[in-house]
Amino acid sequence: MGFPKTDLNQIKRHPKRGAYDRDAAYEIIDEALICHVGILEQTQPVVIPTIHARIGDKLLLHGSSASRLLNYARSGKPLCVTITIIDGIVLARSLFNHSMNYRSVVIFGRGELVEDDEERMTALKAVSNHLIPGRWEEARHPNHKELKATKVVSIPITEASAKIRGGPPKDEEEDRELPVWAGVIPLRLQPAKPEADPQLGTDISLPKYVSDYVRLK
Amino acid sequence: MGFPKTDLNQIKRHPKRGAYDRDAAYEIIDEALICHVGILEQTQPVVIPTIHARIGDKLLLHGSSASRLLNYARSGKPLCVTITIIDGIVLARSLFNHSMNYRSVVIFGRGELVEDDEERMTALKAVSNHLIPGRWEEARHPNHKELKATKVVSIPITEASAKIRGGPPKDEEEDRELPVWAGVIPLRLQPAKPEADPQLGTDISLPKYVSDYVRLK
Repeated sequence: MGFPKTDLNQIKRHPKRGAYDRDAAYEIIDEALICHVGILEQTQPVVIPTIHARIGDKLLLHGSSASRLLNYARSGKPLCVTITIIDGIVLARSLFNHSMNYRSVVIFGRGELVEDDEERMTALKAVSNHLIPGRWEEARHPNHKELKATKVVSIPITEASAKIRGGPPKDEEEDRELPVWAGVIPLRLQPAKPEADPQLGTDISLPKYVSDYVRLK
Repeated sequence: MGFPKTDLNQIKRHPKRGAYDRDAAYEIIDEALICHVGILEQTQPVVIPTIHARIGDKLLLHGSSASRLLNYARSGKPLCVTITIIDGIVLARSLFNHSMNYRSVVIFGRGELVEDDEERMTALKAVSNHLIPGRWEEARHPNHKELKATKVVSIPITEASAKIRGGPPKDEEEDRELPVWAGVIPLRLQPAKPEADPQLGTDISLPKYVSDYVRLK
């Protein structure tokens, strides 16, 4: 089921790039490592980067009880979560038609505090799996004190839209013959060689979920 | 000269990660391809990703005259520009101490419309050089009509702060001996092989500034 178009989520610039189906949005949400959350301090918008996770139709944020972001998010005031994946640089023959290939999602919503301990653990497991699948099964789980120090906020994903640009540059007809290279430089968030903690015991080998880590789903 | 600490820009969570000198912030701003701008629609925060550039102590945004973001930015109302570079995933022995390595900058400011045509061209050149150095010298420059259709907004960088996390995981003393791999998976936005426009003439070769493209400054 798609998102209903509203005044807020409707794509006005480049409407052909807009997508309102949940599958398209959820794929982007799940692939992106972090999101940017827009909150309000009096009349001042504040944008804070943080890691997220998704369970079904809910977006989950977590953080310290002292965090400005989490305290706003739990208040139920309107917030905006924007998720952006950069896919490439689009080089047209004219500078005017230069662009980026990207996939983004904007969610307008309100957070609610997750209070049930079991739900909180499920949320933290989702965050861990979002960061790196396999890790939850191996690392030490949160203890009572750590769980208590962590706030989890759930944001129902009801009003959202995705925006996607892909493919080659679009040049003006009269520019096509210019002697200028045109095309796309694809970009991707790539892992480099894992760096072991200097304090790591020499008998501990690199897990496969670390050596094979890729961001793309 | 550094940024004065204010109520808004002061790093409250993990204050040791905070940096208030311009050099640290500018390096992040210049390396990051895009920013996320927080604006306000009535009481609803809205976060929009866009490309930016910097000239001296000014951040520059550009876009269509019809863009919601540009129209807000030119209005002089308070906005927030957040720039985030992901550097890696930090795997601690406990899930609680998992983290990200990142560099981020948050700028609180107000935009002003750049009206002078020469200044606007200088700004567009800065955006082009931010995206990919060398391109301005080769691609077709904006003509009168294109320049007219483009708004440029300048945001003086006066109230800002950077936040940086680097290095290995920090585990609790009592977790150090757990038989769990710990360390960092470095991540970087990497270019893949350039994809020529299917309509590109066969006599046009790949420029060096495209084949050698790297994001890191």
